[in-house]
Amino acid sequence: MDNRLIVELLQQHLARQPEGLMLRIRTFLALRQAILDGQLPPGTRLPGTRSLSRDLGMGRNTVLRAYEQLFAEGYIEGLIGDGSYVSEALQRVGRHPTPKRLVGTRREGLSRRGGEIAAASSSSRIQRGAFMPGVPDTENFPFAIWRRLLSKYFQPAQSHLLQYAHGGYGPLKVALAEYLHVTRMMKCSPRQILILNGSHQAVDLCARMLTDHGDRAWIEEPGYWGSRNVLRAAGLDVRAIPLDAGGIAPTPEDWEAPPRIMCLSPSSQYPTGVVLSLERRLEVLEQAERCGAWIIEDDYDNELRYHNQPLASLFGLSRTQRVIYVGTLSKVMFPGLRLSYMVVPEDLVDAFSIGNAELFREGRMVDQAALAEFIDSGHFTAHIKRMRGIYRTRRDILLDELGARLGNSVRVSGGHAGLQLVYLFDAPVDDAALAADALADGVVVRPLSLYYMDRSRSEPGLNLGFAAVPDELIRPAAIKLARVVEVHLEKAARRG
Amino acid sequence: MDNRLIVELLQQHLARQPEGLMLRIRTFLALRQAILDGQLPPGTRLPGTRSLSRDLGMGRNTVLRAYEQLFAEGYIEGLIGDGSYVSEALQRVGRHPTPKRLVGTRREGLSRRGGEIAAASSSSRIQRGAFMPGVPDTENFPFAIWRRLLSKYFQPAQSHLLQYAHGGYGPLKVALAEYLHVTRMMKCSPRQILILNGSHQAVDLCARMLTDHGDRAWIEEPGYWGSRNVLRAAGLDVRAIPLDAGGIAPTPEDWEAPPRIMCLSPSSQYPTGVVLSLERRLEVLEQAERCGAWIIEDDYDNELRYHNQPLASLFGLSRTQRVIYVGTLSKVMFPGLRLSYMVVPEDLVDAFSIGNAELFREGRMVDQAALAEFIDSGHFTAHIKRMRGIYRTRRDILLDELGARLGNSVRVSGGHAGLQLVYLFDAPVDDAALAADALADGVVVRPLSLYYMDRSRSEPGLNLGFAAVPDELIRPAAIKLARVVEVHLEKAARRG
Repeated sequence: MDNRLIVELLQQHLARQPEGLMLRIRTFLALRQAILDGQLPPGTRLPGTRSLSRDLGMGRNTVLRAYEQLFAEGYIEGLIGDGSYVSEALQRVGRHPTPKRLVGTRREGLSRRGGEIAAASSSSRIQRGAFMPGVPDTENFPFAIWRRLLSKYFQPAQSHLLQYAHGGYGPLKVALAEYLHVTRMMKCSPRQILILNGSHQAVDLCARMLTDHGDRAWIEEPGYWGSRNVLRAAGLDVRAIPLDAGGIAPTPEDWEAPPRIMCLSPSSQYPTGVVLSLERRLEVLEQAERCGAWIIEDDYDNELRYHNQPLASLFGLSRTQRVIYVGTLSKVMFPGLRLSYMVVPEDLVDAFSIGNAELFREGRMVDQAALAEFIDSGHFTAHIKRMRGIYRTRRDILLDELGARLGNSVRVSGGHAGLQLVYLFDAPVDDAALAADALADGVVVRPLSLYYMDRSRSEPGLNLGFAAVPDELIRPAAIKLARVVEVHLEKAARRG
Repeated sequence: MDNRLIVELLQQHLARQPEGLMLRIRTFLALRQAILDGQLPPGTRLPGTRSLSRDLGMGRNTVLRAYEQLFAEGYIEGLIGDGSYVSEALQRVGRHPTPKRLVGTRREGLSRRGGEIAAASSSSRIQRGAFMPGVPDTENFPFAIWRRLLSKYFQPAQSHLLQYAHGGYGPLKVALAEYLHVTRMMKCSPRQILILNGSHQAVDLCARMLTDHGDRAWIEEPGYWGSRNVLRAAGLDVRAIPLDAGGIAPTPEDWEAPPRIMCLSPSSQYPTGVVLSLERRLEVLEQAERCGAWIIEDDYDNELRYHNQPLASLFGLSRTQRVIYVGTLSKVMFPGLRLSYMVVPEDLVDAFSIGNAELFREGRMVDQAALAEFIDSGHFTAHIKRMRGIYRTRRDILLDELGARLGNSVRVSGGHAGLQLVYLFDAPVDDAALAADALADGVVVRPLSLYYMDRSRSEPGLNLGFAAVPDELIRPAAIKLARVVEVHLEKAARRG
């Protein structure tokens, strides 16, 4: 091909290359594009670097570096001496000349399970504002202490803490075992504790280690959407078992088709706050033993119980190693930390440790070291105690304000622990529409129907988070919300 | 029951409670144990708090708090007035009087896939020492800068960064999109970038969004054990496709039973360092398009290429949106950071974003903010450039030393980029036995056979990491290793 043609071609391609790149990279990209487009077909001899650099008005070294890169990536053969030729391997190129978009809808190309995951979107893009549930206060976090601890462990002398890890940080496991012993009356060895990145990962690990594709899983109805979606994504046949006042209430028929695994929140059911009764605890443990089912005990906010001690764990009550306990630091430290822990029966420790290493590959030892010292120095319990007081005050303001305005038309469920409470309507309110209207007024609430798998069973209600809302913002937001609720109660009355 | 009997019983149980707990908790535990053991059967009237506290020699308040806790948890009914009775609900208790261990072997109770995960244990508990592969140097990490950046973002004014996240930190996605543009010649918008906790999570997300249980997946043979195990745990039928000098080399028969997904490391195959040839790249892209397969491009260490620019990505070469690019910060920042990123085709962005939120729940915005500023301020490229020089020196020392001692009895594969290189033996050396002997001498190496799914195809070799070994420690370790290798070469010669 005539060198003048090649120069012209390259000038056109060069003009189309993105700004801000070094000239030699733009030259490389221009040449590559001409080759990939078939304008410089396989076998074409490229101009020498001296003449091309002169014709393009750039340094010879620039062209040389572009050629080197083309050579390194296989686009041209020969670099010096006999000259450079477009690679014969490129005969294949050019059959798909224009970028092709995936055909059809946005979901096109996903697998069946991928499509189900995408369709089950339940987490919210909004994570702030009155009354987003499940979210702790982070303004009162002891930032200075945490900065000091991170800085203490991010040091050259501790550079090994920056490497991959295999098993959690030893002192953290010791600290957590002691903490669980004192606060949750759980006897476990540090060896039984696994550190994970959040409770979704803990549920996922249980699902993969203890169940097979197609196995049945039980969750609570209503229940936490996260566990539901994680279990489904692990290929399980997820059934939601309705609650009553004593917590999850499987019927005798339910027990005839028992699950391989069940995900429970016995201390404070999410989102209703219902405590699993002792009778029901014993029944669940006994049946699990009978049918070889595993229980995941999701104990997400028991530290934040406003009266008495935290309730004893199901894990501690079990005598048969069928319970895996999952705790999280998201609520009592901060959600973005993404650290959770699980306590597994002694006989499962080895297998779960391997699973954790293989599936997730471990690290984050600096964070774990800082957390271990945070716990050991007493900052952890002090922070929890302080936040419990703050949250209790916020809960009381919310209860007062909504109680005064809505009176008997709503019932409260939960609020004895944690970060949120549920308001139930006796009238047939459309809670999703209510939540949408509240959002339009700047108030974030999550409709109770969102927590149901079978929405036909759904009791209308709202899940309200009070913990992350500063005291002085609760009242104005509650007033706004009460107005929206009143409108929807009237609508429901007209419908009824 | 006679109150004196109850007192005696409780004294026995109290003596057995763990030290270090508050007296009221020990009292609660003692009472609970007596109830659960059936020594205080349902219906038993407990002594009044006044008499029991006197008989046990403790404050009345202590007993009262223990009773309150028993009441809150449902072990007793009635708290004041008519007295407290052991709950009738406890009729069920006592059928499994002794803690029961899971029957049979250690693996008992795992599911089939759980058993497979546990059996495929490939990650090493040893993550340090000459010559552990895949591990970067962390001693030369700019600790002071990183501490400063973390402290800058761990501030009350930025408390929202401590909350859950939905989608990665915006400025980090912008910084990574620019970085990929300049270094990898990839055109992508920040929207296409997802932030994850390590590349295992990225592969897992691809597997769940793009494949169904039982689908076929291809990996490279030899290849990274992590991808293999993650794909298997997602229920895929994983096939390992052997390499040749041009990288992964599927036969026409292989393409007749094409995969739904394939996991490739085109820039620098792990562990061999082979670069996927341009011809093979085009073939793979074309076939993937033809049969609707997805390609995961695992680009784990391309920044650390010692000559030329990093090679252009497969993602950049693809015109049909079949490639998902996976990058990691583990090698160029530090492994314990547990941050990786992926670039997905535009049409998959929404679905993958939902999948990331649902399956893993996001957070860690402080780390992401610090990283974004680390990149934007130029520390990132400066650190990479500096480490590239350090690693190159270490590689050269290793090559010199082993070359001088082992000469022609070994061949080197890779070492043009990254953190490790492979030594291949022409003789039938038992590389696993060699690695075990080296470990006994204090030298960590990983046998090449470990990276094969079908070990009968395995070429004997060693994967040696040089990056994390200080210069002055390379030579002595290499001398030790050479001696062990010589012994095994002799053994192989005798066998041959």
